[in-house]
Amino acid sequence: MKVARYQHDGEISFGVLDRSEDGTGVELVELAGDPMIAGFETTGRRIRLEQARLLAPVIPRSKVVCVGKNYADHVEEMQGETGGEVPEEPLLFLKPNTAVIGPGEPIVRPAISDRVEHEGELAMVIGAVTKDVSEEDALQHVFGFTCANDVTARDLQIADGQWTRGKGFDTFCPLGPVIETDPDLGDARVVTRVNGEVRQEGSTAQLIHSLARIVAHASQAFTLLPGDVILTGTPAGVGRLEAGDTVEVEIEGIGILSNPVL
Amino acid sequence: MKVARYQHDGEISFGVLDRSEDGTGVELVELAGDPMIAGFETTGRRIRLEQARLLAPVIPRSKVVCVGKNYADHVEEMQGETGGEVPEEPLLFLKPNTAVIGPGEPIVRPAISDRVEHEGELAMVIGAVTKDVSEEDALQHVFGFTCANDVTARDLQIADGQWTRGKGFDTFCPLGPVIETDPDLGDARVVTRVNGEVRQEGSTAQLIHSLARIVAHASQAFTLLPGDVILTGTPAGVGRLEAGDTVEVEIEGIGILSNPVL
Repeated sequence: MKVARYQHDGEISFGVLDRSEDGTGVELVELAGDPMIAGFETTGRRIRLEQARLLAPVIPRSKVVCVGKNYADHVEEMQGETGGEVPEEPLLFLKPNTAVIGPGEPIVRPAISDRVEHEGELAMVIGAVTKDVSEEDALQHVFGFTCANDVTARDLQIADGQWTRGKGFDTFCPLGPVIETDPDLGDARVVTRVNGEVRQEGSTAQLIHSLARIVAHASQAFTLLPGDVILTGTPAGVGRLEAGDTVEVEIEGIGILSNPVL
Repeated sequence: MKVARYQHDGEISFGVLDRSEDGTGVELVELAGDPMIAGFETTGRRIRLEQARLLAPVIPRSKVVCVGKNYADHVEEMQGETGGEVPEEPLLFLKPNTAVIGPGEPIVRPAISDRVEHEGELAMVIGAVTKDVSEEDALQHVFGFTCANDVTARDLQIADGQWTRGKGFDTFCPLGPVIETDPDLGDARVVTRVNGEVRQEGSTAQLIHSLARIVAHASQAFTLLPGDVILTGTPAGVGRLEAGDTVEVEIEGIGILSNPVL
């Protein structure tokens, strides 16, 4: 099931994607509330997908947790920049919720950085209050999955040592286009394109720390809340974004997150 | 003016501290809403301070921004542990809002750390949507000031390199007891005691990066929202907390934040 958050006629709603009854397109079936909290009761209203403006499928009330160095080829390409060793445990950092934008919204490169880069990633959306969960049970606490771009001011990340500022600017956490509640993520392609050209290409099969391990590990430190988002790391091929670029993160079975760059 | 958030008769309210009319004690004058958003309209209800249970004076909807290495004597004591150089700009990191607790609530040392330490600090509470503010105007965007303890699992902070996890555990951000909207912070003492014994003692006069500079710098990266909290760094003397300890952070003109340790 694909869940979207969207604006239509000035109102913001959650909805579920469904084939139109006449078979000619896709419709949004409006939900009565936030499905991460209130379940999947519908209002009965349906609109055509193209009539809605899709928004970030969730704005976390608490945390965007991120995992660094979770694909071996990316760890290798970062040697000499942010350190080259593969961590034994998932390496966690946070992005603030003020960094979140939706599909189509512009990534704004801050004037104080000369090197803003894309990092296409799979993101998990938490669906329940989660603390000290076991790896075995972890994925039951995940509401669904979406595409994310862990946009990074690489020069500031390296200068600060702590990654918070370089990765925390407004607009540096595009999410979307939808949350897929039940994708097949055994070996799903994670592809990032800039102006149509493939820059990063990996598969969820290459994750050093599994999705379940990440949730379990993060929940050892923080209570995870419904709507919290966890970014799972980026494959090799990170690179610069320039004004006028369009960057896309595509994950097999979920969709394409596309954002212009200012 | 001192602002508190408190629980009384099962309800949570904001209130302002005031002398009782008979001059025998202190009362809480209940506010109609969250003063960071709705101003200082009162409901007319007054209760004795000792009848209320004080809570964390704010739970940020977005960020707890922290500044590292902002007192020279603390930078020196951390040489060989988290690095000894004084940063040219305020070094930022984040704690999640799930780490916030109020006065009297226990700090829970996680089983996976052998070295949980106190860091008493002055905290600013943001009062307006703030982006790219100048140093000159910065303090107009601050609602008030409170005491904070930047509790840290030092072993995990050092092991991870990134400070997020070691400083982000549940209960690792005690705040309170009240927000003082107009303290004199030119040279206010910041004292941390464990079981009554002074462990850290500094003054806001020793801050390497000024309060205004910190707000301006953070607002260059993140949009700050009403209720966001900024911790301003800790003086020398950080040290271990053990089960059964009581840790107090006292800031002149604000009050004493006291928490037991489990």
